[in-house]
Amino acid sequence: MKSDLDALMASKNLDAILVIGNASHNPPMTYLTGGGHVSSATLIKKRGEEAVLYHQDMERDEAAKSGLRCISYSTHPYQELLKEAENDAALASALRYQRMFSAYGLTAGQVGVYGFTEIGSTLAAFDHLRRLMPDLALVGETRDNSLFMYAMETKDEAEVARIRAMGRITTTVVGRVAEYLTSCEVRADEVLLKEDGSPLTIGEVKGRINQWLAELGAENPEGTIFAIGRDAGVPHSSGTASDLLRLGQTIVFDIYPCEAGGGYFYDFTRTWSLGYATPEAQKLYDQVQAVHEKVMENLDLNAPFKDYQRLACEAFEQDGHKSPLNTPAPTEGYVHSLGHGLGLNVHERPWSGLSATDDNLLRPGVVMTVEPGLYYPEKNMGVRIEDSVWVRPDGRPEILAEYPYDFVLKMKKWKKEG
Amino acid sequence: MKSDLDALMASKNLDAILVIGNASHNPPMTYLTGGGHVSSATLIKKRGEEAVLYHQDMERDEAAKSGLRCISYSTHPYQELLKEAENDAALASALRYQRMFSAYGLTAGQVGVYGFTEIGSTLAAFDHLRRLMPDLALVGETRDNSLFMYAMETKDEAEVARIRAMGRITTTVVGRVAEYLTSCEVRADEVLLKEDGSPLTIGEVKGRINQWLAELGAENPEGTIFAIGRDAGVPHSSGTASDLLRLGQTIVFDIYPCEAGGGYFYDFTRTWSLGYATPEAQKLYDQVQAVHEKVMENLDLNAPFKDYQRLACEAFEQDGHKSPLNTPAPTEGYVHSLGHGLGLNVHERPWSGLSATDDNLLRPGVVMTVEPGLYYPEKNMGVRIEDSVWVRPDGRPEILAEYPYDFVLKMKKWKKEG
Repeated sequence: MKSDLDALMASKNLDAILVIGNASHNPPMTYLTGGGHVSSATLIKKRGEEAVLYHQDMERDEAAKSGLRCISYSTHPYQELLKEAENDAALASALRYQRMFSAYGLTAGQVGVYGFTEIGSTLAAFDHLRRLMPDLALVGETRDNSLFMYAMETKDEAEVARIRAMGRITTTVVGRVAEYLTSCEVRADEVLLKEDGSPLTIGEVKGRINQWLAELGAENPEGTIFAIGRDAGVPHSSGTASDLLRLGQTIVFDIYPCEAGGGYFYDFTRTWSLGYATPEAQKLYDQVQAVHEKVMENLDLNAPFKDYQRLACEAFEQDGHKSPLNTPAPTEGYVHSLGHGLGLNVHERPWSGLSATDDNLLRPGVVMTVEPGLYYPEKNMGVRIEDSVWVRPDGRPEILAEYPYDFVLKMKKWKKEG
Repeated sequence: MKSDLDALMASKNLDAILVIGNASHNPPMTYLTGGGHVSSATLIKKRGEEAVLYHQDMERDEAAKSGLRCISYSTHPYQELLKEAENDAALASALRYQRMFSAYGLTAGQVGVYGFTEIGSTLAAFDHLRRLMPDLALVGETRDNSLFMYAMETKDEAEVARIRAMGRITTTVVGRVAEYLTSCEVRADEVLLKEDGSPLTIGEVKGRINQWLAELGAENPEGTIFAIGRDAGVPHSSGTASDLLRLGQTIVFDIYPCEAGGGYFYDFTRTWSLGYATPEAQKLYDQVQAVHEKVMENLDLNAPFKDYQRLACEAFEQDGHKSPLNTPAPTEGYVHSLGHGLGLNVHERPWSGLSATDDNLLRPGVVMTVEPGLYYPEKNMGVRIEDSVWVRPDGRPEILAEYPYDFVLKMKKWKKEG
């Protein structure tokens, strides 16, 4: 949580942090500002001290919404810096960093740097800054091990409320998709038809999903997995736009939108078979659902997340499937890990892979996905069931957006004449 | 154009370029790959040689669509690099850069670095890489002066076709908004009402805009300006979500969506007054439209873009308004510059400000906006008219998406009873 930042800085031997870039689509900056229309901002925070947020003059009101101490860049007028830098824009930018740091009382020490930004401009400025401030070390951390990945691993109630609201939008859209598909007419060859009598494609379904998400106030920056047949059997296939919708085939529908403007994500998967299911597909579905239930029933506060990956592997192997427990990188059966943390990143700590470190625990405040699945691309089948789960402060796991687990969706109109 | 890259590299004394990050929402990488679902890629290109694109194993097919020489990261297995780096992820990443550079025959020289990415991870890797390869200099350029800003300044026909397609989507949505607004019932106090009888808000109009853009295959990452009354008089106000729509007030509608998945932008503005216009607003509108026409009629191949800013300033001053020509940073009248280049960035070269350098020319292949405007926030009025214009190879300017210049939009239903 945010309140852990100072302790994490101490553990990483950082005297200060520097976060740069927009307040949206930029997890560390979104995390500290709350998001909004604040572009190309600079946040500086010394350990144990209040942060300061530099912003563009015009974005004063948006910046103020962060509740942080806000200062306009124009306090250090750029035209003067550019003159001092003899028109070298990178040096002018470095001089501005120097002015901002000095005004904040930061002239030496280890400074961790974070944010999604243009690397060329930033490297050019940092190279000058390192010469200008030799006692101040700019330190990069790899993303997965960074301060923010650890801080963001547990969520406060306000963050959970935002994820829950995204869950509501997500399941509303999933419900609309189910309603739309089951209302389609079906051709004699079991292909779904649109209102105009032509076949419905995956691409068109995805178009509707994007429209509905936009209508409800969500963005879909990472796209949607809506995969049928062989694609459903390949966990990372997002589906083929020109594919038609057919009865009796597994459809993996994995949807992970975020707040409009860039913010908290939800992550959710259902697998459907329209009209009817083959016995083989139904068996796979039942096995995945049983493992999903078993994991949900056994979640314990502060347990290592990977314990449940092991549980899933063992259960699936007992059902006769391959899993990463005894097969390195299997290409069929249970081929991935059980889940991942979820927040401002669609994938973040804690991790559940068997090789995850022991500190990936189901701490109170963790929000993570539980998503067992089985994949048989050669049989044109795949099944995954995914919910996003909050580990409540009292230790009880709570699915943040409930949605039915029906596999076979009953069609409202059966085959079209002719 | 892309074909200028080698010459630009020579002029900047760069032996090679390194572009990192996703293929979408990352202009330099989108430019060289064409976009698509290629994430965390690495592109290396020596001057005068073919580029190579490193990609994740799973994204092989998407990467191949770039037409570039593609190599999977797994050629240099990460687990082995991590072992060699004794589990230091940043060092492993640097070793991977070293392997990729060496395999490509790049071991020394000046390498320009570009791309939108996570600064912490990248800086950590680059700091190691600089130690591992001391003869290779990683050089950052500021964005506005970078190689890519110059290359992207002129567009080839394929790029223009993509911008034109975005223009079609943009004007389609603008037409739907006009149709929707003029179909609304109007309350006795001249407020527009929704179907349910409650007042329509700016926020709801923006919601519809986002839905329609999504439906037509566009994204709206930078938002929309839909500003009425005083907000219309402030060029950078995007409008207040809770504001109501009223007759007889200037509405500045500036819309700049990009291709879904991140790509080429369009940029377009119309100013409307619903039902009727005040004589004062009509006069402003006529003056802006006259300047827009005058600029369009006078555009000359290879002329400096800022010549037309001067022309606009002079015309507006003749009409009795302030302009940047004789008033530093005016807050009313004509307060901004005439336009900007448009492509993978909503704002890019060429620039039109009076202080723009002399090399910002209307070269064949330039796509730029022409957007004169007049702003009187204290009078609750603002007017801007903007089109995106292609300087054709034959020198003729072409508006890439035509749309009528009506100021007063006639309401279809007049005031509601009671």
